[in-house]
Amino acid sequence: MTQLPIIIDTDPGIDDAVALLMALTSPEFDVIGLSVVAGNVSFEHTLANTLKVRELTGRPDVPIYPGCDRPLLREPVYGLFSGAGGLGKAALPEPTLSAETEHAVDFLVRVLGEAAAGHRPKPTLCPIGPLTNIALAIAHSPEVVAGIDRIVLMGGAFADLGNRSIAAEFNILVDPHAAQIVMACGAPIVMLPLDLTHKAIATFERIDAIRALNNPVASVVADLLTFWDRRDVDRFQTRGGPLHDPTVFSYLLNPEWFSGREGFVAVEVASELSMGHTVVDWWGQTDQPPNALVLTDIDADAFFDDLCRRLARYVKSAP
Amino acid sequence: MTQLPIIIDTDPGIDDAVALLMALTSPEFDVIGLSVVAGNVSFEHTLANTLKVRELTGRPDVPIYPGCDRPLLREPVYGLFSGAGGLGKAALPEPTLSAETEHAVDFLVRVLGEAAAGHRPKPTLCPIGPLTNIALAIAHSPEVVAGIDRIVLMGGAFADLGNRSIAAEFNILVDPHAAQIVMACGAPIVMLPLDLTHKAIATFERIDAIRALNNPVASVVADLLTFWDRRDVDRFQTRGGPLHDPTVFSYLLNPEWFSGREGFVAVEVASELSMGHTVVDWWGQTDQPPNALVLTDIDADAFFDDLCRRLARYVKSAP
Amino acid sequence: MTQLPIIIDTDPGIDDAVALLMALTSPEFDVIGLSVVAGNVSFEHTLANTLKVRELTGRPDVPIYPGCDRPLLREPVYGLFSGAGGLGKAALPEPTLSAETEHAVDFLVRVLGEAAAGHRPKPTLCPIGPLTNIALAIAHSPEVVAGIDRIVLMGGAFADLGNRSIAAEFNILVDPHAAQIVMACGAPIVMLPLDLTHKAIATFERIDAIRALNNPVASVVADLLTFWDRRDVDRFQTRGGPLHDPTVFSYLLNPEWFSGREGFVAVEVASELSMGHTVVDWWGQTDQPPNALVLTDIDADAFFDDLCRRLARYVKSAP
Amino acid sequence: MTQLPIIIDTDPGIDDAVALLMALTSPEFDVIGLSVVAGNVSFEHTLANTLKVRELTGRPDVPIYPGCDRPLLREPVYGLFSGAGGLGKAALPEPTLSAETEHAVDFLVRVLGEAAAGHRPKPTLCPIGPLTNIALAIAHSPEVVAGIDRIVLMGGAFADLGNRSIAAEFNILVDPHAAQIVMACGAPIVMLPLDLTHKAIATFERIDAIRALNNPVASVVADLLTFWDRRDVDRFQTRGGPLHDPTVFSYLLNPEWFSGREGFVAVEVASELSMGHTVVDWWGQTDQPPNALVLTDIDADAFFDDLCRRLARYVKSAP
Repeated sequence: MTQLPIIIDTDPGIDDAVALLMALTSPEFDVIGLSVVAGNVSFEHTLANTLKVRELTGRPDVPIYPGCDRPLLREPVYGLFSGAGGLGKAALPEPTLSAETEHAVDFLVRVLGEAAAGHRPKPTLCPIGPLTNIALAIAHSPEVVAGIDRIVLMGGAFADLGNRSIAAEFNILVDPHAAQIVMACGAPIVMLPLDLTHKAIATFERIDAIRALNNPVASVVADLLTFWDRRDVDRFQTRGGPLHDPTVFSYLLNPEWFSGREGFVAVEVASELSMGHTVVDWWGQTDQPPNALVLTDIDADAFFDDLCRRLARYVKSAP
Repeated sequence: MTQLPIIIDTDPGIDDAVALLMALTSPEFDVIGLSVVAGNVSFEHTLANTLKVRELTGRPDVPIYPGCDRPLLREPVYGLFSGAGGLGKAALPEPTLSAETEHAVDFLVRVLGEAAAGHRPKPTLCPIGPLTNIALAIAHSPEVVAGIDRIVLMGGAFADLGNRSIAAEFNILVDPHAAQIVMACGAPIVMLPLDLTHKAIATFERIDAIRALNNPVASVVADLLTFWDRRDVDRFQTRGGPLHDPTVFSYLLNPEWFSGREGFVAVEVASELSMGHTVVDWWGQTDQPPNALVLTDIDADAFFDDLCRRLARYVKSAP
Repeated sequence: MTQLPIIIDTDPGIDDAVALLMALTSPEFDVIGLSVVAGNVSFEHTLANTLKVRELTGRPDVPIYPGCDRPLLREPVYGLFSGAGGLGKAALPEPTLSAETEHAVDFLVRVLGEAAAGHRPKPTLCPIGPLTNIALAIAHSPEVVAGIDRIVLMGGAFADLGNRSIAAEFNILVDPHAAQIVMACGAPIVMLPLDLTHKAIATFERIDAIRALNNPVASVVADLLTFWDRRDVDRFQTRGGPLHDPTVFSYLLNPEWFSGREGFVAVEVASELSMGHTVVDWWGQTDQPPNALVLTDIDADAFFDDLCRRLARYVKSAP
Repeated sequence: MTQLPIIIDTDPGIDDAVALLMALTSPEFDVIGLSVVAGNVSFEHTLANTLKVRELTGRPDVPIYPGCDRPLLREPVYGLFSGAGGLGKAALPEPTLSAETEHAVDFLVRVLGEAAAGHRPKPTLCPIGPLTNIALAIAHSPEVVAGIDRIVLMGGAFADLGNRSIAAEFNILVDPHAAQIVMACGAPIVMLPLDLTHKAIATFERIDAIRALNNPVASVVADLLTFWDRRDVDRFQTRGGPLHDPTVFSYLLNPEWFSGREGFVAVEVASELSMGHTVVDWWGQTDQPPNALVLTDIDADAFFDDLCRRLARYVKSAP
């Protein structure tokens, strides 16, 4: 099987953790590295959490690169739904391995530069946190954009507005300047915004199905997702919360479950009221060509079934 | 029949003209006055057009008050879809009567002040243009807000973004500062945004039905609406354009055809990118209570049937 | 003597009170009316204070028009240096007369409209508070700008930045949108910003000279100014505070004591950091012609001597 | 003599070139490296110009690090007064040596990291162009701030506003986001803004004195400065232009010729009108402690005499 080379930029975070557990057990991916950024919780925690999740997966071969510990210009904003340490009340193993010494931005510049030079296949970037690391790599060496196959990111909010503020999705809100650098970089971009992820709710039935897999990783995933109980019942019409980040990998594996449309997306960085809003031109009202495919629909049942199937693989491999 | 006292603030404009023709032949309304504002075209034209439309309706009893000829702070922006004079190529009669000498803002302050003092029933304000006149009346005499029954306005764009810019609906974009004054005034507000009006398309079939009424007013309406031919076929999946302003009066007459939800709405006035965007808190993420009922769905067939039925009344009354 | 017709728009406030006491005893002025606006303190207080000051001057012939009780868009900001009621601890007489019933904005529109039509001399507008009233009159009836001889206002901060915020002068900060409407209106404008008024410090010696006049009005003025004791000693290198508002009338009486230069001035309304900053093009870097003469220097000794001489007139006329 | 270790971040540009020629012949400095950024002209030109200037100085030992070729978020803005290639009409030698392969940001992170770890003396950063490189290094590795002795930069405009826009100085305007990252980084900062540099005019007399040195470098400097003839005669009351960048090195050599005061400086990044304005709190009106010493006065005669004396050293050493 030809593997898809990917780099995951992450800030675990409950749904980041689930996304990593899903991606690292999917043989379709060649995970070149995990770059870590501050976001759901402080960098100290996101780095520690990434190490713990890797430990749980039994994938010591996947290197972890520590990245930026704060947004470019704004004061840090942390998530509301991941608990103090970022992983709710789930018990993850203490890591036995440490992170690389190479900075995530240097890692990105190096690998993407090699790809731009034709020395390796172009990776797909999978940012599932604030875009600080990716933006810095682009600002540092704009020529590495040529080494990016696609950027497939979880972020933004269009018709279905706001989780951490009324106008913005969390990943974009935390570092809107970084997000704007990325949106303007010229690489092909696929966005999975709240419009889509709010259709992928980790309901009790779905959590139960994962827990019933009865392997150590699935149990952790079930514990992680249970932490979201009763969140926004009014909004989502059910208990449980939207499972944002794993949708990125589901899209890479099964794009036929997803649909959306192209538009020109810019990030609001000038107004506090709208800070981090992803402003889109769907209809060619500006003279800007589309810079993103914005996915807004998902076959959520297929997505959760597949997630379940993939987590089932951990039966034997878990420590 | 008890009539609903209303004041229409208008900037004709094709759909304003249709709205006025609909409202002025509806016995359910006591139209206290028409206040005129610049918008779709320059004030010189919107005032002339209002006079012409009144002439066509044979309703000399409805006074017309000339208002503000430009937005509060921003340079004027004019509409794209109403033709140079604002009424496409339709032939309307030259007016035989002139406007009042009282300024629209003074009229609003006077009538609403009387209502606030209990000397007359509280009118419903029906703004179907930029909100300059309404905002000035409120800024001049905030106590007159107590004399407003409701403000039912055509304006805003939420999930279905942008007509004159990618982030904003035309009426709000033209004078976002005025719109913010109105949104914050404390009166009950009902908004009919693009999300709703883009579901009320004047298709060829619907225009044909109006033309078939075969009376002078209906012919003018059909001519007005035909001017929109081929507009945004990609966006609306049909020829013809959305019929924005008359929905306000349909809602007052038949609210059961409409649905939506409450939220706290603020207008973006700080960023050029998002200027005039109606930012909404649907989920109580801020500590602001809802200030508007935002209607997003309409029974468009019922609406057009009713419009047709009302325009049919002009058979005998037209000059 | 030909009198200069003036309208004073005011928000007393200690220095507003001194300015009114100065202007109302100056036979060079025909004070057509005082229009009142919220500012240094709430409107309830600024109106009451204006009535008290008029009472003290023995000028029942000068009508007082109540105006806007809040800024156009922003939440009210009140002054820091005028005490709870706005007049420090000075004891002013209770008013025996009440204000006009005509709204200040209507008064401005009426009088300026008469002047624009050639039915009366064009008044000089003297705004010494936030510009809400003036802006509303202009927005209501832009044609009355032709009835304004000049607008000579206390407001703005250029090289000498900030009193109520680091970037803005109080009068502009309170209602920056109104200020921008005024700056863009097209009338000739003279600004007396902090750059000038910070050179007109009411030192103890100057207050003593006023108190030594030993008349009831001068005693009140001395009491008012003493309230500023120890304010910003570091900044002004002396005890006592800058006497902002009376400089407007001194300029009208003795322009030879003042100097400055012309520029194009716009008001910052888009950024919280710079909100209310008066941005100026001194060097023709934009294509905008100058819209204001910005006075930055004053012969402060001449100004205070003249103030003293004028307040001495109250010996006989005070009640 | 103990040398002061410095890193010069530069975008030549005429006055950058003069600054480099001054700094590289001053034995008081240990110039660790020159990092290059886009600014006065495109990066292609600023890099080529830096190489040419080094060639002229005969200092092959000073490494040149190529940095960022565009601002973080904004479209590039180029200077108006340096000619198409950035060095007016002066004839500089073609470089025989090339730049390092290490990126300027990596160089900064490496050297400052070593200094932060106590492995080398802390350098003084001397940015005389847009702050993109410096900001990226700080964003990449905030801990390297501890390795900075001081940042002494040419940039900003306070009372003496605007050269490239009415509100902003060029270096800050080009990359205001970078400038804000730097201002907020926590390192001691000394700013030499337009307020100071506009007092250091390269008059014809001063240019003549340089030309009279009659060495190859001085001739180039005279040619460079002559390119500014007749610039802003109204503003500066003389022919010739302000010599911005060399003042940074003069301050390091002779701080007694300079004076200013401390304040808290933030950079406007939210409003187009004020974009890049350096907003300052001189008086402790916010709760922010000062983050910069802002120099506003210079002994210009001493500065130019010293510049002349230093350029005279090139007699023998020039190729």
